[in-house]
Amino acid sequence: MNVLGYAAHSAQDALAPYRFERREPRPDDVVLEILYCGVCHSDLHQVRNDWGGSTYPIVPGHEIIGRVLMVGPEVTRFREGDHAGVGCMVDSCRHCAPCEAGLEQYCHEGATFTYNAVDRHDHTPTFGGYSEKIVVPESFVLKVPDGVDLKGAAPLLCAGITTWSPLRHWKIGKESKVAVIGLGGLGHMALKLAKALGAEVTLFTRSENKREDGGRLGADTIVLSTDKRQMAAVKGCFELIIDTVPSVHDLNPYIPALSLDGTLVLVGYLGDLNPMLNTVPLIMGRKSVAGSVIGGIAETQELLDFCGRHAITSDIEVIRIQDINKAYERMLKSDVKYRFVIDMASLKA
Amino acid sequence: MNVLGYAAHSAQDALAPYRFERREPRPDDVVLEILYCGVCHSDLHQVRNDWGGSTYPIVPGHEIIGRVLMVGPEVTRFREGDHAGVGCMVDSCRHCAPCEAGLEQYCHEGATFTYNAVDRHDHTPTFGGYSEKIVVPESFVLKVPDGVDLKGAAPLLCAGITTWSPLRHWKIGKESKVAVIGLGGLGHMALKLAKALGAEVTLFTRSENKREDGGRLGADTIVLSTDKRQMAAVKGCFELIIDTVPSVHDLNPYIPALSLDGTLVLVGYLGDLNPMLNTVPLIMGRKSVAGSVIGGIAETQELLDFCGRHAITSDIEVIRIQDINKAYERMLKSDVKYRFVIDMASLKA
Repeated sequence: MNVLGYAAHSAQDALAPYRFERREPRPDDVVLEILYCGVCHSDLHQVRNDWGGSTYPIVPGHEIIGRVLMVGPEVTRFREGDHAGVGCMVDSCRHCAPCEAGLEQYCHEGATFTYNAVDRHDHTPTFGGYSEKIVVPESFVLKVPDGVDLKGAAPLLCAGITTWSPLRHWKIGKESKVAVIGLGGLGHMALKLAKALGAEVTLFTRSENKREDGGRLGADTIVLSTDKRQMAAVKGCFELIIDTVPSVHDLNPYIPALSLDGTLVLVGYLGDLNPMLNTVPLIMGRKSVAGSVIGGIAETQELLDFCGRHAITSDIEVIRIQDINKAYERMLKSDVKYRFVIDMASLKA
Repeated sequence: MNVLGYAAHSAQDALAPYRFERREPRPDDVVLEILYCGVCHSDLHQVRNDWGGSTYPIVPGHEIIGRVLMVGPEVTRFREGDHAGVGCMVDSCRHCAPCEAGLEQYCHEGATFTYNAVDRHDHTPTFGGYSEKIVVPESFVLKVPDGVDLKGAAPLLCAGITTWSPLRHWKIGKESKVAVIGLGGLGHMALKLAKALGAEVTLFTRSENKREDGGRLGADTIVLSTDKRQMAAVKGCFELIIDTVPSVHDLNPYIPALSLDGTLVLVGYLGDLNPMLNTVPLIMGRKSVAGSVIGGIAETQELLDFCGRHAITSDIEVIRIQDINKAYERMLKSDVKYRFVIDMASLKA
């Protein structure tokens, strides 16, 4: 299946039009025409090989909303014309304990990621959503509830589920007190989702000018993390802090804000904790620092359904695929409120 | 009440005999004649002011087993002649949420520690168990089950409860897989208690010569943490790792040994995590690094009762109080299997 997309051919290259072959559909596959694709910070990390392990050419994109073009004979839940979503994973081993538990992101054999990975059956490279079409096994395709704004729903497939999964795992609901560090793609979803779950929500931010947006997006309280008095005032407050900051930063000022048995969960930063994490407040309050990555397929469907019921979508700026390199530059400067979404119709222009 | 004990008068001084006044008993107090007192690494830390905040003279000791000499008129659970224990705390605010939950060690106002603290009613200094007698509110006095070896029970009050509390909090029991890092006072108790709870127990150690003792104390498996192949073989194995190492060390090699949702809980080391903790394996396996300090009064009683039923005590070497300074030197070299306990009868010699 010949497909047009945008690819990077090396860590130094800008993204440019690229024609490539996708694998032929298998009996359990769904073929989607891609309508919208969100632009995730990890797209840029992988295009530039920031984490190592990038194999070129890379066609990024794992916040995919599309329309079903065709389904294989074994597909039962989708039919032509349905709206559907694809997130960060397109397959997994499907039989290990995490897969059985619906936590395919922690598959013991490693999930098959939507791009920069290798199909586990025919060993062809996977290519992401900055393209016309994608072929994905039914089990990894999400149903998009009726009436949801399609372009605003695209970022739910990564930014949304990455914050939803820890909110659900740590059982956030009414009477919970949750804080979010950072107001970007992930952070703004964390605010919306925590609020919709009924929690009392605080935003930690370094910039006063996030106050208005923070409040609009769901924060009951804004705490300037650079202000020691404001930080002292939230000592012992939060059962969960979702840390969405994608770059190295000091966790130590936030640990005292956790309550007894509270958890700070990292969802954005991969690397060494620099400066060093001090153990004293962890020990003296039985607190935890944890990590969490995206979410399983079942909980992604749960999120989409929840967002359908609560009319939640991401705050987005729609761009043409031809503007993707400019969008990356702006994303590096946090100059986006709060997620770029590519209108894939532009690819035909 | 005039009492003889052993005290340090400065961070540089050896411990020496010291006569001091204890507060007069209040109506809810129990007065104990101290029979045995365990020697904890934190005694040495505080004598030498390693953590700052030491106020001299210090009479250390918070692993206290004694005989009730007298009880105040409001005391209902103890009478003269009973064997009783006192651990790291002698009081707390008793009304905050952690106190109400039986977690006095996390008291919002700060618990009153057994020594190097200040009584919260009359503001006199607290003095520990390296002494003839102690005066403690009934609520902070533990019952010692009949038939327990008294000297071997003393270390349960700190080394025991410090490992018991995380084992219980993280719900360790039959079918649990637990690992313990380090085989000292805390580590040897962790092995015994985890085993008695029915868990499958692994000891991480850097020295091959801990193999025999590790097995005898309850470890089903010994893993040499310096051996990369052995470390790789336990990848993803443990729901809980209790890290008892009291000095700075690298946590990074142990994180991959946690299973999905597993926790490494620090109980021994207060300070910066050096080298820096890397977040990648935390995020990629929803793992946690947590801390825990001693345990509450109710769970300490639970521990003593459990140890009574299972005939568990600490492996100890009994010393005379006159040998305490030599014992500190040996403790610094880990030359004790596995806890010194002072026979306080020696104080009369």
